[in-house]
Amino acid sequence: MKQLRGFASDNNASVHPEILKAIAEANVGHAVGYGDDQNTEQAQQIFKQCFGQQTETFFVYNGTGANVIAIQALTQSFNAVVCANTAHINVDECGAPEKLSGCKLLPVETNNGKITVEQIAKYMHGFGFEHHAQPKMVSITQATELGTIYSIDEIKAIAEYVHSLGLYLHMDGARIANAAAALGCSLADISINAGVDVLSFGGTKNGLMFGEAIVFADPKLAESVKYIRKQSTQLHSKMRFISAQFARLLQNNLWLDNAGHANKMAKLLGEKVSAVEGVELTQRVDSNGVFAIIPKEIIEPLQQEFFFYVWDEHRSEVRWMTSFDTTEEDIEQFVTTLKKLLK
Amino acid sequence: MKQLRGFASDNNASVHPEILKAIAEANVGHAVGYGDDQNTEQAQQIFKQCFGQQTETFFVYNGTGANVIAIQALTQSFNAVVCANTAHINVDECGAPEKLSGCKLLPVETNNGKITVEQIAKYMHGFGFEHHAQPKMVSITQATELGTIYSIDEIKAIAEYVHSLGLYLHMDGARIANAAAALGCSLADISINAGVDVLSFGGTKNGLMFGEAIVFADPKLAESVKYIRKQSTQLHSKMRFISAQFARLLQNNLWLDNAGHANKMAKLLGEKVSAVEGVELTQRVDSNGVFAIIPKEIIEPLQQEFFFYVWDEHRSEVRWMTSFDTTEEDIEQFVTTLKKLLK
Amino acid sequence: MKQLRGFASDNNASVHPEILKAIAEANVGHAVGYGDDQNTEQAQQIFKQCFGQQTETFFVYNGTGANVIAIQALTQSFNAVVCANTAHINVDECGAPEKLSGCKLLPVETNNGKITVEQIAKYMHGFGFEHHAQPKMVSITQATELGTIYSIDEIKAIAEYVHSLGLYLHMDGARIANAAAALGCSLADISINAGVDVLSFGGTKNGLMFGEAIVFADPKLAESVKYIRKQSTQLHSKMRFISAQFARLLQNNLWLDNAGHANKMAKLLGEKVSAVEGVELTQRVDSNGVFAIIPKEIIEPLQQEFFFYVWDEHRSEVRWMTSFDTTEEDIEQFVTTLKKLLK
Amino acid sequence: MKQLRGFASDNNASVHPEILKAIAEANVGHAVGYGDDQNTEQAQQIFKQCFGQQTETFFVYNGTGANVIAIQALTQSFNAVVCANTAHINVDECGAPEKLSGCKLLPVETNNGKITVEQIAKYMHGFGFEHHAQPKMVSITQATELGTIYSIDEIKAIAEYVHSLGLYLHMDGARIANAAAALGCSLADISINAGVDVLSFGGTKNGLMFGEAIVFADPKLAESVKYIRKQSTQLHSKMRFISAQFARLLQNNLWLDNAGHANKMAKLLGEKVSAVEGVELTQRVDSNGVFAIIPKEIIEPLQQEFFFYVWDEHRSEVRWMTSFDTTEEDIEQFVTTLKKLLK
Repeated sequence: MKQLRGFASDNNASVHPEILKAIAEANVGHAVGYGDDQNTEQAQQIFKQCFGQQTETFFVYNGTGANVIAIQALTQSFNAVVCANTAHINVDECGAPEKLSGCKLLPVETNNGKITVEQIAKYMHGFGFEHHAQPKMVSITQATELGTIYSIDEIKAIAEYVHSLGLYLHMDGARIANAAAALGCSLADISINAGVDVLSFGGTKNGLMFGEAIVFADPKLAESVKYIRKQSTQLHSKMRFISAQFARLLQNNLWLDNAGHANKMAKLLGEKVSAVEGVELTQRVDSNGVFAIIPKEIIEPLQQEFFFYVWDEHRSEVRWMTSFDTTEEDIEQFVTTLKKLLK
Repeated sequence: MKQLRGFASDNNASVHPEILKAIAEANVGHAVGYGDDQNTEQAQQIFKQCFGQQTETFFVYNGTGANVIAIQALTQSFNAVVCANTAHINVDECGAPEKLSGCKLLPVETNNGKITVEQIAKYMHGFGFEHHAQPKMVSITQATELGTIYSIDEIKAIAEYVHSLGLYLHMDGARIANAAAALGCSLADISINAGVDVLSFGGTKNGLMFGEAIVFADPKLAESVKYIRKQSTQLHSKMRFISAQFARLLQNNLWLDNAGHANKMAKLLGEKVSAVEGVELTQRVDSNGVFAIIPKEIIEPLQQEFFFYVWDEHRSEVRWMTSFDTTEEDIEQFVTTLKKLLK
Repeated sequence: MKQLRGFASDNNASVHPEILKAIAEANVGHAVGYGDDQNTEQAQQIFKQCFGQQTETFFVYNGTGANVIAIQALTQSFNAVVCANTAHINVDECGAPEKLSGCKLLPVETNNGKITVEQIAKYMHGFGFEHHAQPKMVSITQATELGTIYSIDEIKAIAEYVHSLGLYLHMDGARIANAAAALGCSLADISINAGVDVLSFGGTKNGLMFGEAIVFADPKLAESVKYIRKQSTQLHSKMRFISAQFARLLQNNLWLDNAGHANKMAKLLGEKVSAVEGVELTQRVDSNGVFAIIPKEIIEPLQQEFFFYVWDEHRSEVRWMTSFDTTEEDIEQFVTTLKKLLK
Repeated sequence: MKQLRGFASDNNASVHPEILKAIAEANVGHAVGYGDDQNTEQAQQIFKQCFGQQTETFFVYNGTGANVIAIQALTQSFNAVVCANTAHINVDECGAPEKLSGCKLLPVETNNGKITVEQIAKYMHGFGFEHHAQPKMVSITQATELGTIYSIDEIKAIAEYVHSLGLYLHMDGARIANAAAALGCSLADISINAGVDVLSFGGTKNGLMFGEAIVFADPKLAESVKYIRKQSTQLHSKMRFISAQFARLLQNNLWLDNAGHANKMAKLLGEKVSAVEGVELTQRVDSNGVFAIIPKEIIEPLQQEFFFYVWDEHRSEVRWMTSFDTTEEDIEQFVTTLKKLLK
């Protein structure tokens, strides 16, 4: 099999060698299933060090699983969840949030993936009116699906507003590592410490083989989560193999090295392609994604050399994602091919 | 960490070294996510060779996921599913089948985990009567949760009966490898070839790190499955790492070696403990589980040396599971400890 | 249309003239929809007088609606509900409880429709064990689907046991009026006062046109009910027409007159048929149902003269229900026909 | 009780005397429950005469029930339903469609309650892409929640487009009678004959006490509906009392008289208030609703004399609905009061 690296998605990347090593090291003898093992205990301790001693963390298989469990934990079926129209929960989970939680999603139109207090406010009515699905949660994505980033102050403002109305704040942090790396702050600073009540913490897009974590700011919010996780088909029997990956990811800043490198590669890619005539960037390159409009006719030939996805067919807008294993050489080759096709 | 092996569950076992090797070999460069990769294509071909060219296979995370997707694929929410009262879907999935499918489970009382045509027939009424959840599926477990095994003829009889009434037959094959190894037949012989419409094919209990497969006898039954899998949170992004495990498991009879060894160890354990005074076997040792009644007072001290679960507290019945990595020495030590405690 | 009265079900009966009159009286001018009207306020006051000032009552369309709202109000989707295998929620609601609440039903085998503390206790395990649907509610039917009745002491014993484990007690009171009439006590005595947390209070089977009430023992249990009722499609816009019926039913003991008469007719029917050779009663005639085994060959001819249902085909057991409008003449004619066919 | 008539909603109106009479006439003797009675048979025949012999009709309690059954009948949980953002299913059913069907709603922004092929087209992508909820139904409301009306040609254009993509067209006809009366055409012309696959046919807002009908264009689409209706808690036991109302409504054009009168009253109200300084109509008065912006400070005093709802608080927009029992005198008094307050 020829070794290929493209720009389709950070989940097309391989597993980081250190993660694979951690898995192999956990593969010793028997371990009690479903999380009562030493690897899981250790990983949970590391999460407490990272996000605060009062937090509680649950490991699951994937991001959709993390999101729908977070929603179920803090809502009832007659509630509504406000999110960006571009949010993963809104457009990329095949209706899993609606099906598993019963809740209605209230999508906010956004051009850059970020939502504001003003936009959320538009949905903050009908409380107590039984004909309306009752708003109970706001969900933001950090970094967003468009590669943009909320500042700490922006998150705090949303959290404060949301809490003042008795709602909860969820963060879909499938790429929170990229956001923290870009902002130069800790993972907790842009999530739990900024007022997030529950965080879907992404692993797979940052070098893991499988696994996602759900971090609750307060154990009271998490009382039913173990049952919800099981009933939502997201409880792994050989849990140690998820836990060992997360323990390694958070140790020695591996998460930061991986995300920082991916961001750096995106910055480089963004700079190079924006200098090419016929390419127009459509979003700021804040994390590890580059969004650009390119001539329709070169999309397919370019895809044949490097995987990537069309983001908006109508606008001829494409998305290029970088990952921990993207190399400068990959970018060099990609830009060369792009230029050749544009001639 | 001290290397421990107990008899709690085959999912407490480690990952087979060959499986870990296959994972490492798949970890090369980028691969398209969600199953459009070479490892998955190869694994699906192997499943076709194994179960028939007309079958269609989907990879998921775990057994609960496989079961609830199988149910959703072949039922509507007003249907009912007949199963043994001991079935995993009935007692070990925290209501996931009811929640995700909306169906009612109709549990058949059984002493050995197996159900018969006569028992199923008791529920075959009320067709067309809108007040009754309409029976649409029968689910059997092979090997059963009690370690017993359906013969090919028994499965064929159930399939024939079930099909004659317009119902589907599901097999929870979390331990189908153990059953096939015990019966000395192929995996297909005791499932698809015997009339099973959809099979949850277990990997994790037979040496995988994570992953389960759903095999449909007919692609027509599987038309909506890709959406159901996604909406049920069971679609893995880095799919190649599940596929590579399954490809290896089915190659060179690794599945058979693993399951055959586990069965052999259970047979040995059963023989040894049944010779001990104070131990009474409660089920035939047909696959890799040993069920026994032992004096209540020795349960806890024995558990402190070797992990295992109490099956029925009232009867003082315990369950001892063997796995691919159980050694004769493990059994020797266990029986020695058991004898010591019984004195 | 020829005027017919059969013994099929108390819901085959007509609407009591006084109820129809109350409806007509409520049909004056406009009234605010969804329950903010004077008829509803008055009806709720009457319910408070009847069941206690601390209770809270919600009006819905039918019994299935009342039951699934009661379940949803006091459970989460990972919970389980213990009930008799003969319970309406288990066999006559086409899986509505499972679909709308997500809960698992745990059916207790019973010969007379009643369940005991000992039988409930069999399911009281696995608390805190995430693989098991967590028991949270016990549901009993008064009078039962087999016409039998729980004594006040029996209900109190179940309530005490259930509460000691942190569970709730639901009563399906589709025929609670018949039970109270038979026991000579108030509606509250055999429900809220005996420890029932939520009661489905039946109207349609006792002379109403449509409508059922849900009575909560404590407003804290009912905080989300208005949303659940709406989301479960059970909120009526022209609510005054349900409320007016209930107000009338509870005034001047109309409920008692209706139920008492139905019971009296059943007693009479039971006495008459038990004296006929070839008829064997299978249940005590405690309320308004008579269950009997009769020769298979006379069932169809008898049904052609009077509607009724076969209860258990295998045993040739039939069910004859009486209602507020059953007359002695109806019974006379029925028994005469029965005797003729038995010759 | 003082006789009051306001402009809050057509469901605040009383029951038409002819309907009450039909109910009383149906109240004779016993009738088989759940729809196997003569009134229901007759009503279904009338619906066939009205909508076509090939159609199939089911009676339910209310509009939310009709809508969620229609959706469930023609979708699977991974589907999506396109509708106006103002649609009743989107904003007035507390998330019932999402909870009961599992589907995602895709709301189209609209200023007048109507949606166009161009707007629908925006959502027609992602077919076959498992990450996206698969569009399977478009739902339009006739007359809309804003009182506007689709022309026959507009409906045909949507139906043609929708069918060309394999989707179904649902019509929420809570006020279809008002639309047909306004357009001067038959009920079938603007629904089934124009390509609608399933129609929620409203009764309660046009003079019934309770009851709504679901009309399927093709019996094949309705095969599972009887189970879905029961499981969705919408099956009435004493069905004859819904059926008798619908039979009467469709006989001798009572539906048309009622709706035509309500429309006429709205037209009159619209003309009168639009001549008042300080009142600005915001929608065409096509059916029985008048939408207007009035000074904020007069809203509350006006509400104290006549019930009505604020439609959009920000714009100070209110809604006035007329019904079959609105009189010219009601309007005279209302306009007089309005003028007085505006001085």
